[in-house]
Amino acid sequence: MTGAYLKGSDRPLSQAYRLALLDLDGVVYRGKNPVEHAADSIAQAESSGMAMEYTTNNSSRFQSVVAEQLRGFGLNVEPWQVITSSVVAARMVAHHVPAGTKVLAAGAPHLREEVAKAGLTLVDSVEDGPEAVIQGWYPEITWNELAAVAYAAQRGARFFVTNRDLTIPRELGIAPGCGSLVNAVIEAVGRQPLGSAGKPESAMYDEARQLVADAQSAQGKAAEPVAKEQCLAIGDRLDTDIEAGNRGGYDSLVVLTGVADPRGIMLAEPILRPTYIAKDLRGLNEAHPAPAPLPEGGYACGRASAWIDGGELHVASQGDVEAPSALDALRAACCTMWQAADRGIDTGAIVLPDFDI
Amino acid sequence: MTGAYLKGSDRPLSQAYRLALLDLDGVVYRGKNPVEHAADSIAQAESSGMAMEYTTNNSSRFQSVVAEQLRGFGLNVEPWQVITSSVVAARMVAHHVPAGTKVLAAGAPHLREEVAKAGLTLVDSVEDGPEAVIQGWYPEITWNELAAVAYAAQRGARFFVTNRDLTIPRELGIAPGCGSLVNAVIEAVGRQPLGSAGKPESAMYDEARQLVADAQSAQGKAAEPVAKEQCLAIGDRLDTDIEAGNRGGYDSLVVLTGVADPRGIMLAEPILRPTYIAKDLRGLNEAHPAPAPLPEGGYACGRASAWIDGGELHVASQGDVEAPSALDALRAACCTMWQAADRGIDTGAIVLPDFDI
Repeated sequence: MTGAYLKGSDRPLSQAYRLALLDLDGVVYRGKNPVEHAADSIAQAESSGMAMEYTTNNSSRFQSVVAEQLRGFGLNVEPWQVITSSVVAARMVAHHVPAGTKVLAAGAPHLREEVAKAGLTLVDSVEDGPEAVIQGWYPEITWNELAAVAYAAQRGARFFVTNRDLTIPRELGIAPGCGSLVNAVIEAVGRQPLGSAGKPESAMYDEARQLVADAQSAQGKAAEPVAKEQCLAIGDRLDTDIEAGNRGGYDSLVVLTGVADPRGIMLAEPILRPTYIAKDLRGLNEAHPAPAPLPEGGYACGRASAWIDGGELHVASQGDVEAPSALDALRAACCTMWQAADRGIDTGAIVLPDFDI
Repeated sequence: MTGAYLKGSDRPLSQAYRLALLDLDGVVYRGKNPVEHAADSIAQAESSGMAMEYTTNNSSRFQSVVAEQLRGFGLNVEPWQVITSSVVAARMVAHHVPAGTKVLAAGAPHLREEVAKAGLTLVDSVEDGPEAVIQGWYPEITWNELAAVAYAAQRGARFFVTNRDLTIPRELGIAPGCGSLVNAVIEAVGRQPLGSAGKPESAMYDEARQLVADAQSAQGKAAEPVAKEQCLAIGDRLDTDIEAGNRGGYDSLVVLTGVADPRGIMLAEPILRPTYIAKDLRGLNEAHPAPAPLPEGGYACGRASAWIDGGELHVASQGDVEAPSALDALRAACCTMWQAADRGIDTGAIVLPDFDI
């Protein structure tokens, strides 16, 4: 977000940044299947010296379970490299209250374990007088648990939630997400939570930097958190992964292996715009050409250029039309569209080309 | 709703109407305690020939349990006189689909029993291919059950809910209501339910009339449902009990033993305005004076009158100031305020007097 719309990097991103903050679903795996090129690209980035943290809004699965799943995809992952929204929520509360404070946690055993690990005292009932309450999610969560969160918050407990995703895609269909149950509790409490651990908030990325430092310190290495400027948020969703990057001041890379598609990226409002675009995680080990504005309007990127004329976005590849060039065309197109939107043009009405990336 | 703002009745309401559609909480009891004058007034109305149906948006308690509770307050109640939103929801679905249709019911054992009683086939899983789904509520309802409702609705099952109350007042505080969990499911499904059984919809009152007829038929008596014009909806909440009356075309009586207060009634928008006002259920066995417009503006009722002057609502009792007259003053005041609002006056800015009723 330096005024330029996409950054360039002469070196591969895995050498230009020290820590990758990777989303999981749509980036590393899709449900039970690995995403193409993910494991190889991550291994290659690690061999270039880049550290990996895996971030997920899921609040119910133990870090060890997620790490085990990732190892099944051929990745070399330790449990501490997995950051769930329960890990972040517990640490967030610990930043707000003294050690030993009584906390009610409505969520999975994983959340309860993290609350204890954060030096807080778990209580089981509103009548125990919790001074903070965390609303998480797990498939067996009941109305009784939601009601207890509402009562505690009404009695003055500081109110935190693991994440605010409104829906969860599951095998059988789309299910209500933790955020929809949070909204049900807000309806009863009459006020918003003090904090949400999950993306699109940036707390997860901030905590990830600290957790890497803690792990390195435990191994007797330098214990300073990686500087924000040396971290790269990576995801497939503009409205969670990329927005969290922008909110927290992190550079970000969007990959096209999940939710985001070229049209959505071209039409993204400022808070949703990534710093880099790649087809998949191979982009982590590649240099990225810097787009540059053209004197006659529009942008050039690599051997591609893009401009708006007659209510239509035009792209031209100044060479062959193989994939890398189509990606450069998309990069030039995004810069062109974002600039137009920021100048007050109704970009929703502009006819967009297809990109065969 | 005949153009006049409140109706009058020369006879006691219990003689002018044949069937009372009574709300429970705030009318008959408050939590564990009986409401003053409720049991005696109901017994007296019954001895005048008025039949009683007790209506509740609660979907988790068996009719026999509610009837037992009411008997504890000295009322003479049979289980069939209790209409829950589960009873209505099951019958509502049975009106929409052929007998034997497979129905998924997310709710209490009471809801499941009602679905079976309505001639429908209960199924336990989305994979059983339900053609209708009912979302109810009970304290132990889990996210898994909410998700199953969402999946079934997404696969084309007709989607019904027991009620849409956003909150439930409980002893420990305000808890999320069934309606908040319904909203969470709607977020996932992407469409509204086909029907909601609870108030402020009027289905509960319609079904109550039919259920009285069924019970009388079972006793060998005349089996025609009581005509709408001979039913009186009675409640303490404008936005559920009274609105359901207005939506369904029923006359209604608001009592001041629960949520509604004079100010709220005076400022009520048209859909929330009752036909009669009483302090408590003693009003059921009383005649109600008809308010009449005054030639110089404002309304008279009994020995009271009300008018707006200088941004202020004025009331005068043309006699003593004991309770019945204060109630007549409120009746005159309501008609005056409703007329002003309907003429485009900003009644929210009018200074209102206190009523010592």
